[in-house]
Amino acid sequence: MKRVITLLTDFGERDPYVASMKGVILGINSEVQIVDITHQISPQDILEAAYTLYTSCRYFPKGTIHIIVVDPGVGSRRRIIALKTKDYIFIAPDNGVLSLVLKKEKIKEIIEINNERYFLKPVSDTFHGRDIFSPVAAYLSKGVPLGNFGKRIGRIKELKIIKPEVGKGKLMGRIIHIDRFGNLVTNIDRKTLKDIRCQISDVRIEVEKERIAGIRKSYASAKRGELLALFGSSGFLEISINLGNAAKILGIEKGAKIKVS
Amino acid sequence: MKRVITLLTDFGERDPYVASMKGVILGINSEVQIVDITHQISPQDILEAAYTLYTSCRYFPKGTIHIIVVDPGVGSRRRIIALKTKDYIFIAPDNGVLSLVLKKEKIKEIIEINNERYFLKPVSDTFHGRDIFSPVAAYLSKGVPLGNFGKRIGRIKELKIIKPEVGKGKLMGRIIHIDRFGNLVTNIDRKTLKDIRCQISDVRIEVEKERIAGIRKSYASAKRGELLALFGSSGFLEISINLGNAAKILGIEKGAKIKVS
Amino acid sequence: MKRVITLLTDFGERDPYVASMKGVILGINSEVQIVDITHQISPQDILEAAYTLYTSCRYFPKGTIHIIVVDPGVGSRRRIIALKTKDYIFIAPDNGVLSLVLKKEKIKEIIEINNERYFLKPVSDTFHGRDIFSPVAAYLSKGVPLGNFGKRIGRIKELKIIKPEVGKGKLMGRIIHIDRFGNLVTNIDRKTLKDIRCQISDVRIEVEKERIAGIRKSYASAKRGELLALFGSSGFLEISINLGNAAKILGIEKGAKIKVS
Repeated sequence: MKRVITLLTDFGERDPYVASMKGVILGINSEVQIVDITHQISPQDILEAAYTLYTSCRYFPKGTIHIIVVDPGVGSRRRIIALKTKDYIFIAPDNGVLSLVLKKEKIKEIIEINNERYFLKPVSDTFHGRDIFSPVAAYLSKGVPLGNFGKRIGRIKELKIIKPEVGKGKLMGRIIHIDRFGNLVTNIDRKTLKDIRCQISDVRIEVEKERIAGIRKSYASAKRGELLALFGSSGFLEISINLGNAAKILGIEKGAKIKVS
Repeated sequence: MKRVITLLTDFGERDPYVASMKGVILGINSEVQIVDITHQISPQDILEAAYTLYTSCRYFPKGTIHIIVVDPGVGSRRRIIALKTKDYIFIAPDNGVLSLVLKKEKIKEIIEINNERYFLKPVSDTFHGRDIFSPVAAYLSKGVPLGNFGKRIGRIKELKIIKPEVGKGKLMGRIIHIDRFGNLVTNIDRKTLKDIRCQISDVRIEVEKERIAGIRKSYASAKRGELLALFGSSGFLEISINLGNAAKILGIEKGAKIKVS
Repeated sequence: MKRVITLLTDFGERDPYVASMKGVILGINSEVQIVDITHQISPQDILEAAYTLYTSCRYFPKGTIHIIVVDPGVGSRRRIIALKTKDYIFIAPDNGVLSLVLKKEKIKEIIEINNERYFLKPVSDTFHGRDIFSPVAAYLSKGVPLGNFGKRIGRIKELKIIKPEVGKGKLMGRIIHIDRFGNLVTNIDRKTLKDIRCQISDVRIEVEKERIAGIRKSYASAKRGELLALFGSSGFLEISINLGNAAKILGIEKGAKIKVS
């Protein structure tokens, strides 16, 4: 089985940053499969990176090494960590970007990466993705044991993730992501809805001035241009318009509130 | 020879959809070469996807599996098909996206994909690209026979492709694609021009208020900023400006008419 | 060790051009690792391509074949060259795009590519990237000797690279690149600064109406929103705003002058 290394950054695809990382990796292990998760995270938006990682990482094969470089603290004393779970190894700055993933994955070991033997020389002060994250991931993919890269640590930084406010039979959530199709992804999952004992068919949703009754199974179950709610492929409640762009048509932005009762 | 799987979607590169598909594929067959055709098809634009597939798929090696997920009908009863030609297997929703390809490729077998044994569980109602198309392609790439995935069917949906209107010694075509350089790609190919017995050197072209005489061999055969017509790398007649952006400078959009006489 | 082929073009990711090139390569050698450097070079901007190649190519493993297709002269008599250095082979139009790279890499051999035996047939007049560059790179990656592709030549075209103007204890440079984070990359490297015997701590920088004293080691060593100068990961002096977009906030564009004393 070939090892997979994924890359999740805010570097964009226009600059040569991502390619430099891939060059470094392939120079150490030319046999890996490198997969881009995305490089279009809004610059330095740790929460967006956390959400994107959470909804995609678990589809990768056991043994995949996930590199995350959304790293506004590069060059400061923030730590770089390698975190091992049952299925994956995550290499990331210790800035909370793993917070959402750790709701599903159980931690087996955390290392603070500081063994310079595995770094590119000289290490720049502005691009640890190339000089530290990439070579470490490549050596890990070749079988170098995790313990070689640094000392074990106990805790890492966690983001305060905006959770829905739960009331009696109702809850108040947020739009946390808007995808390319204009679908409004909320922070409300099936479990939260169960917690307030909501029946799927009885649910009433308010977002800005719009009201939606019930939760559908698919976009196509609504008429063209109809507003609907469904549990999207990420597992979260989404507000959509069948064959239309809900975000544009409703003028709703990330962070908007949504009421469910 | 390593198997190639290509991906053609309207998912964009910002969201985690494409990466999830790649994760699923590599979990089943880590040895494939995955190639992105593009993920920037305009949302739900089946014709644009058909054109893009047509102009690129035939450059891939024999045995390549092409996945197309431009799928406004996801979650409805539209079928998912696997279509085998002499050289390729195409996995797509049965919505006409293969119409252009089938002008060149001869059908050997069509299967309606419905054997859930090869699907990701649970199958979501909104993301069959990840839950059905990807695992099926991966199993196909490992040698599972086509017949295992569903029952043989006879016909698939075809798009009404806008063909040029042919008159006596003249024809009326359309701009069907505008590329990154602003080149205006028409639906007129060499054969159509032969049909009206047009001599390349005598051709007169009208598009909006512009007139062009003759067809060139290359962009560089015109002066800087000069308007020209040529047969582009896709095989279709293109209107271009040497070292300039024809679409922007002429203010012409997709769908515009073009007269050839 | 698996061979790597990189692609650097101005084709964008929306059109099927890049995918066609990859298809051609994999049809000849399905075992290579193909890596995108970027496809978002501004259309026909040879200098931008030269800079991007320069800052990324040297991170790739020995033996990598770099393909560059920023080629406004396609279809004219400009030559296509294969240039071998100690570590790499570059395949590019002879339009100066290798000028920056050759400041670091020593030329071992230059070939004008003209042996049609290795081309795709028929060769189009508008897309040599697909019909010539790609198959030649793929055959090279399979071990076909460089001499098979054409005749040895002695000189290639060089761009006039804008060098800083050096005065007594001061110099005048230019912004040559603006990255996704709004960092302003100049054409001033450490060596140039040494040449004017500038002490890092005593440096004074003027760009538009802004003044900066001293050169920092990292973005994070400045306060949030503070303007700073540092040597970036490319090795050039950069003007940045910690956690902000310097280009947008200062309203500075590519080509702007910068004074160092």
